[in-house]
Order: sequence, then structure tokens, then C-alpha cells
Amino acid sequence: MDFRHVTIIGVGLIGGSLALALREKGFRGTITGVGRSKKNLIRAKELGIIDDYSTSHSKGVRSADLIVLASSVGQFEKIVLDIRDDLRKGAIVTDVGSVKAGIMKKIEPLMPDGVSFVGAHPIAGKECSGIEGATADLFHNARCIITPNTHTRKAALSKVRSLWRQLGMRIITMTPEEHDLVFATVSHMPHVAAYALVNSIIDIDRKLLRFGGGGLRDFTRIALSPEELWRDICSSNQKDILKTLKTFSGSVSKMIKLI
Amino acid sequence: MDFRHVTIIGVGLIGGSLALALREKGFRGTITGVGRSKKNLIRAKELGIIDDYSTSHSKGVRSADLIVLASSVGQFEKIVLDIRDDLRKGAIVTDVGSVKAGIMKKIEPLMPDGVSFVGAHPIAGKECSGIEGATADLFHNARCIITPNTHTRKAALSKVRSLWRQLGMRIITMTPEEHDLVFATVSHMPHVAAYALVNSIIDIDRKLLRFGGGGLRDFTRIALSPEELWRDICSSNQKDILKTLKTFSGSVSKMIKLI
Repeated sequence: MDFRHVTIIGVGLIGGSLALALREKGFRGTITGVGRSKKNLIRAKELGIIDDYSTSHSKGVRSADLIVLASSVGQFEKIVLDIRDDLRKGAIVTDVGSVKAGIMKKIEPLMPDGVSFVGAHPIAGKECSGIEGATADLFHNARCIITPNTHTRKAALSKVRSLWRQLGMRIITMTPEEHDLVFATVSHMPHVAAYALVNSIIDIDRKLLRFGGGGLRDFTRIALSPEELWRDICSSNQKDILKTLKTFSGSVSKMIKLI
Repeated sequence: MDFRHVTIIGVGLIGGSLALALREKGFRGTITGVGRSKKNLIRAKELGIIDDYSTSHSKGVRSADLIVLASSVGQFEKIVLDIRDDLRKGAIVTDVGSVKAGIMKKIEPLMPDGVSFVGAHPIAGKECSGIEGATADLFHNARCIITPNTHTRKAALSKVRSLWRQLGMRIITMTPEEHDLVFATVSHMPHVAAYALVNSIIDIDRKLLRFGGGGLRDFTRIALSPEELWRDICSSNQKDILKTLKTFSGSVSKMIKLI
């Protein structure tokens, strides 16, 4: 591994699984967890997921050579403002956010001299969220989108790519803008559609939900994804989500005509 | 059990599971399978699911005291026209269709004197269809909607209700019209929405489908349900599906405004 001290900001399902996967693949350095909830960080340490922790963004990153933003994307800008003066020269900041273009425009210019940012989106998840669901094999055989732009430094890019590849992921490279349109289409828009569907059933009669079979259960499960995460995604990838949602709405209208 | 000879027309996932469940609960009478595909019926007999079979609707029902329509709902009217002259006096015809009002209006008047029809919809299913997926426990602990109307004979109703209860189902009674609005809302409309969603992604770029995570996989799995089944359902429950689909479409428009 190219790193000696990894700080993960946001030790939930993805952040926790990253720590476990690093260990499983033989990482011998330090893993620091940073987050808002001390209780969660204590639990992560008890579970052997992290070596130490801090509730202070700036203290948590001081000696790290890799900083992974694994909290919700809406927090990234504030976090980077908190840590920028404490980042080591030569450190690499990366993230696991499921939106890229808008976020990168905000946080890349905040990186101090000698610190590189590389955007990444490991496509892994479960219905559950939080540290208790974290597993070392979450990323195994899944895809990881790496989203360099013209500012991205080659050496940092190659290290981040190699990190996720070592954790068993298949690497795909695209621009932040391509990434956002792809995920608006295959992920963000379908989630919004599932919300709309469950809402429309509740509008008709909430009691009907109990008659649903397997198909409806899938929709309601999708619609129960963490609200904060989805609010952030919708506001960060607004344009592409709207575009794909309008295509979907047209497709529903076509169905109405066909039926 | 109240029956000695059960004929199941349509030996697929539901019909086959019904035969297996009857056996498991101690049914000692004859189970005849009827269907269009001789190959499928031979397979069902080899698997010990049915005792004998016929590819002729009329021959298959001659000595049966319970006839279960378990083919796709679009076939029901033709089947009843085929069998009506061969039904025994005192026989009960029931079905497992997922639409009720329109179908019952067509087939109830076709029942000969001394033969009763009772509508039923056991809510059970799997993603797979066909005899190979049939299992004795498919109905266990699931709901079965029984849909009597003013024509339904009490004795026949009670026997059909008791049959499904003995197979482990929780019985709910509602009118055919109530049933169709409930299932338009919780099942038919969500399926149409899933079709529309997958279609809209294909409209944007078919290659994007491979980037989908768990959420999208749920949609595509729902959208891959047997086409014939869903064509029949959409045409048999057109009015209620359109009504709920318009509510959904309004809910999508609301989301577009919110985002």
C-alpha cells in the first residue's frame, strides 16, 4: 500500500467497510476515524475497525497521508474548510461521494499547495447504513468510478486507483460530468421515482401498503434510504436528475397512452 | 379437505405450488393438471406434482369437484367456454387471478346450473415463473383475497375460503371492485412504473444499465416479470391502473418541482 496513515471522515457503512477492507488486504499503518458522534467512533474502535479517533476534523487529519471523505456529500465543503490548514504536504484527499461534478468544483480549489484531490465513487452499498453493517468484502468485485479532471495530478490519481483495485474493485474512469449523468440515470432518478411511488400510494390510502407483494417491498425499501443522503444528492446533482426525471415522466405518459 | 378431485388449469408456479401444498396438507384425492404444453405437464407428473394430465380443457375437468383457473387471466373466458358443458353438477370453479371485477363479469354468467364460481387471489409469487419454481410453502403465511359478490353461493364460498386457510393463508374478503383498486395501487401501477423506468434508461443509453446498483436491479427485476401476464392485467384492470398511474404521474411532477 502507498499510505501509512489513513484518516476516514465519516465512519459509517462505507467508511467502516473501507477500514475493514484495508486491514484484510494487509494494511499495517494507522487508521483514524473522524466523525460527529463520539459514541459511534468509540463503537468503531471497540469493533476493531479504527485504531484511534477524533471528533475534530482538523486534529484527525494532521499526520494522515490519505484522507477519505466518507460522510454525506453535503458536508464535504465544510469539512475541507475545517481541515485545509492542517493537511500535511504531499497528502492526498479523496472521497466516496455518489455525486461528483458540483462537489469537486467546490472543494478542489480549497486544497492547499502540495495536497492533491482525487474524486472516487466506489459503487457499493446495502439497505442498512451505519457502522454495524460494515464488512471487509463490501467492495469486492464491485465497480469503482474514478473521476479525474484536468487538475488531477497523475501520481495521486494512480495511488487512489491502485488503492481501490487492491481492495478488489474494478476501476472505471470517467469525467465528473459523465459520472453525474450516468448516476442521475441509473441511481438518483430511480430513487426519486421510488419516493414518488410510495408517496402516491400514501396519497391514495396509506393502509393499502400492507397488501403489497415483493415488487412493492422493493420500492418501499428503496424509498426508505437515508433521507439526508438523498437530500444532498438531489441538491448536488439537480440538473441531471431533473433531465432524467423528465425522460421518465415522459415514459410514464407513454404508458398511460398505451394502456 | 372438502374435495376429492382437483383439476388445476395452468400448471405453472402458482398452479404447481397449489398441487404441492395440497399434498403436503394431506390431500388424498386426485390432482389433474391441464395446460397447453404437454411437455410441461409430463414434467409436472415426473416431479410428482400432479397425478394425471390432459391438454384438453373439457376432458380434464369431467370428474373434478374443484376446478382452479391458474393460467393467465386473459385465457379465463375461453377456458370457461371450453369446459362449461363438461362440468359436474355441484362442482366449484375458482381462480387465482390477480384481477377480479372484469373477469368475474365475463365468466360468472357462463357457469352452468349447479356449478358455483368463487373468485380468489392468493398473493404469492416469486421472480421466477413456471413449474420448476413451484414449492409447497409458497402460500404459507401469505394473504389470500377472496372476492365474493352478490351472486356467490355461501357454501361454495366457505369451501374455497377453508381450502386456502388450510394451506396456511390469511384470508381477507373484499368485493371484486375493491380488490382491483387495491391491486392497481400496490401492484399493477408499480409494475408499470418499473417498466417505464427501465424504458426511460434504455431511451437515454442502454449501456448505462450495467452501472446500476441494488436499487436499479430491483426495478429491472420487476420489469422482467412475464410479459403475457402483465399485458392481460393491464387490459383487465385498465380503469383502476390508469387512475393510480395518474396519481403517480402527479407525484413525479411534484418531485420535479421540489428538486
